[in-house]
Amino acid sequence: MPFHLSCSNIRTFAVRLKGNIQTMNKIANVAIVGGTHGNEFSGIYLLDKWQKQPQLLQRKGLTIETLFANPKSHQENKRYIDSDLNRQFKLDSLADESLTNYEQSRAKVINAQLGPKGNARTDFIIDLHNTTSNMGPSLILMKSDDFNKKMGAYVLAKMPNAVVVYEDQIPMLEQAFLASVAEQGVIVEIGPQPQSVIRHDIMEWMETMTHTILDFVELYNTDTLPELAPTYEAYSLVESIYLPQSDEGERLGMVHKYVQDSDFKPIKKGDPIFSLFDGGEICYEGDYEAYPHFINEAAYYDSNMAMSFAKKITVSIK
Amino acid sequence: MPFHLSCSNIRTFAVRLKGNIQTMNKIANVAIVGGTHGNEFSGIYLLDKWQKQPQLLQRKGLTIETLFANPKSHQENKRYIDSDLNRQFKLDSLADESLTNYEQSRAKVINAQLGPKGNARTDFIIDLHNTTSNMGPSLILMKSDDFNKKMGAYVLAKMPNAVVVYEDQIPMLEQAFLASVAEQGVIVEIGPQPQSVIRHDIMEWMETMTHTILDFVELYNTDTLPELAPTYEAYSLVESIYLPQSDEGERLGMVHKYVQDSDFKPIKKGDPIFSLFDGGEICYEGDYEAYPHFINEAAYYDSNMAMSFAKKITVSIK
Repeated sequence: MPFHLSCSNIRTFAVRLKGNIQTMNKIANVAIVGGTHGNEFSGIYLLDKWQKQPQLLQRKGLTIETLFANPKSHQENKRYIDSDLNRQFKLDSLADESLTNYEQSRAKVINAQLGPKGNARTDFIIDLHNTTSNMGPSLILMKSDDFNKKMGAYVLAKMPNAVVVYEDQIPMLEQAFLASVAEQGVIVEIGPQPQSVIRHDIMEWMETMTHTILDFVELYNTDTLPELAPTYEAYSLVESIYLPQSDEGERLGMVHKYVQDSDFKPIKKGDPIFSLFDGGEICYEGDYEAYPHFINEAAYYDSNMAMSFAKKITVSIK
Repeated sequence: MPFHLSCSNIRTFAVRLKGNIQTMNKIANVAIVGGTHGNEFSGIYLLDKWQKQPQLLQRKGLTIETLFANPKSHQENKRYIDSDLNRQFKLDSLADESLTNYEQSRAKVINAQLGPKGNARTDFIIDLHNTTSNMGPSLILMKSDDFNKKMGAYVLAKMPNAVVVYEDQIPMLEQAFLASVAEQGVIVEIGPQPQSVIRHDIMEWMETMTHTILDFVELYNTDTLPELAPTYEAYSLVESIYLPQSDEGERLGMVHKYVQDSDFKPIKKGDPIFSLFDGGEICYEGDYEAYPHFINEAAYYDSNMAMSFAKKITVSIK
């Protein structure tokens, strides 16, 4: 049987590790991952560009590698072959030898290559994604520690059209995302881009955000960050919202045009969010000001998910 | 062996038929087709809506049926299983018994059901499509006879944001499109919509255009059309433009952001049309003012097609 740490052990270990590296070069090994979903083209084409022009990725003190995570799904021009690769990185899934489909196997290989999760050789993973939603250049953070909070501030300073989303509601070690294999990991999520398309503007945003993050890591490592805004606005994931269905599971409506493309614009009680095929409407009845994102994302139809709701938060970097 | 007319015979027959029907009810049997491509959702969901509310399709003097052309590709959430269904309706393909893959078989079944092409029981086919390109509500016409020219004028009068495209460069009988099975057929092409997504606005445009076309047919049949503009602007297909490739077939660039989303906006000599991954640009060097459309359509990547070019034309309905 393979040896693996219990969850609480690993957390202690990670904290100790982090304590150590705060006095040294904080991030040394970086992995940039593209093609985790085979029909999200920007990252795949950027990996190819960086392979031809590796000097673009050079940063002082950093060893940067690239990884094409799901080549078979790209060959078949699909998000995945058997199951979503970006949901396979929970510790128990990685340890479960009975999970053997293509993406479950790829996850184990990637965990061996970049990880192992909980004690990873890679310090920081940047996982590149596209969405069909109008989210612009979004940076999804899984932690709200000093490193991530300052990264958000730095990226917003350099890319005024960027958006920072915190998905830090559960610890990194319990996350299922590929980027959670390392102690630090982010998801670069750029849209709107249809599946299986390369948009010039979207690829530029992804490239700029990736380079900005690498610049940040170099500056963070060497304690040479410029002065950052003491606070900034970001979004914190609250819940997923699902398309209306009948008791028999038949889809009864679609995302309302009032909310379509309005990612990160507030929704208040009474605003229409779904249009029913029979002509009716469903309005938002929640008790908080919701900031929708991943609105009408193509990949989420298989789970009937219509959008995510976030709350707006103010992040302080002090 | 099945009997089939030679091409020239069929054309004579069609002309004779048309001569006859000009003094009678011109269009009696209409077929509305959705799901010719399984990941173009608007038509598929509209068929479902019309099945539940058939009164929406009722028009005086018309028998209207609906057809879900490629259900298996929709189940698999793909454009097609084996080959593009909307390229299988050439007379020789329909007659070729050695063409047996799923879409080739579906084409033969649909031809038997709505056709046979050249002597079809269906007088008019409306085939419903989506595009990832920013084409808005587009009506693609395969003939420039009185019926089609007036249909274009009527649709533009009722939908000011609509666009009329003539793909009438070859005779209907030589077309490979599903809608060419009947003597009259049009393609309703609405975008931008990512594959495998239902957008409320796009579905409304498709529904409005379909109803407008049915209204037109009823009015045309009964010689009760309102006064139409004597001329209108439309687009006539000239050529397909392909993504830059190396001699080895490697893709070297993408659609330039200058032209992305600018369907039906003119391109002049010297305008950038491609951005190369190595940083370069390719500009338009043609000798006519080109109106691009189907810009960066996801489905055309398999043939490396980047966009279509049209010329602007003035159509006179006199």
